[in-house]
Amino acid sequence: MEEVKLIATHQSFPCARVEWALRIKGVEYEYLKEDLANKSSLLLQSNPVHKKVPVLLHNNKPIAESLVILEYIDETWKKNPLLPLDPYERAQARFWARFIDEKCVLAVWGATVAQGEEKEKAVGAALESLALLEKEIQGKKYFGGEKIGYLDIAAGCMSLWFSVLEELGEMELLNAERFPSLHEWSQNFLQTSPVKDCIPSRESVVEYFSFGINYVRSLAASSKS
Amino acid sequence: MEEVKLIATHQSFPCARVEWALRIKGVEYEYLKEDLANKSSLLLQSNPVHKKVPVLLHNNKPIAESLVILEYIDETWKKNPLLPLDPYERAQARFWARFIDEKCVLAVWGATVAQGEEKEKAVGAALESLALLEKEIQGKKYFGGEKIGYLDIAAGCMSLWFSVLEELGEMELLNAERFPSLHEWSQNFLQTSPVKDCIPSRESVVEYFSFGINYVRSLAASSKS
Repeated sequence: MEEVKLIATHQSFPCARVEWALRIKGVEYEYLKEDLANKSSLLLQSNPVHKKVPVLLHNNKPIAESLVILEYIDETWKKNPLLPLDPYERAQARFWARFIDEKCVLAVWGATVAQGEEKEKAVGAALESLALLEKEIQGKKYFGGEKIGYLDIAAGCMSLWFSVLEELGEMELLNAERFPSLHEWSQNFLQTSPVKDCIPSRESVVEYFSFGINYVRSLAASSKS
Repeated sequence: MEEVKLIATHQSFPCARVEWALRIKGVEYEYLKEDLANKSSLLLQSNPVHKKVPVLLHNNKPIAESLVILEYIDETWKKNPLLPLDPYERAQARFWARFIDEKCVLAVWGATVAQGEEKEKAVGAALESLALLEKEIQGKKYFGGEKIGYLDIAAGCMSLWFSVLEELGEMELLNAERFPSLHEWSQNFLQTSPVKDCIPSRESVVEYFSFGINYVRSLAASSKS
């Protein structure tokens, strides 16, 4: 009998990626809710290198890092493929998923926490990243074509999570005038199963990010004083 | 007729990864040597997002990012698989390759450029990263088992390149006493085909890194003055 457990926290988007993927595949799993302020020994044993959620436990074997977990899920449960089948399209999907994690998320986070004269420059960098993704989604319903795929799952942070960061950072990034295709994708994405059945409340994400933003801003303020 | 071209520079280890992979697969390719001080329009068109080498051109279709290219090569030319066949082992190989790029390389680079009171802490962080990889290679000839695989290729920077950074950073990291298994792996790796036939000269790598190190140190010095 197969056993699938997910160590995760509801407000984190890397964790949401794994939940969406498991649900697309129709894999049943047990959700082990992690308290990040008091990490469990199971998490520390399962991901001793990064000590971070999400961790997927498949028959007690741990897999960490959300994009690595997505590939594992796609290779283990073949139904409803997440990645395209063509090697070149697979490479493009992986390229953009890395871009989202390594550039886009950092740029939007940087714009959120930036204050004073750094704000305009940081917002500009975030807009530059998003403009590249706007070009990628133009003319398509989903990054994966007619269905949600690997890159939609990876890009899921651009829906609710970026919207919360815009609110907390008092800035407008992903509006319909500036990025019509990304904006429409984001609306579609949030209304598609299984995403719509498996998304944290806006209030809980606001609370989740607020702590980190205040912490970073207080560090920046104390280093200047 | 298939056409494979590689836009690259000999001293860069992400570029070396792609060359090793193509040679393991027995794929013939044309090497397009890039001058990073005066980037070609072909590079800028092929990788407009990052404007970086390596880029693989397969029948004129560009693929960028060395780890993405390795997966593409493995999926396109099936002979001599680079990744393990088992999904769990594949996930582990991908996890550690990301660790090398996102933690280990940055830690060793940080230790190289650090000066003054920051040096000891930075060297400590680099040693912590390497200690995790020492545990991974213990008892094995290669990360891939009896043959060089995806993770050996990803880890290839720990051979010649890290050794040059140790010299330029005036520090000892990967010696035989501290990390006997990694040290032995590194020696084996450099003597294995196709690596041994396709490695830049030490002098050229010293020159390649020296420029960057001096630049970073001069920035750090000017921000303190």
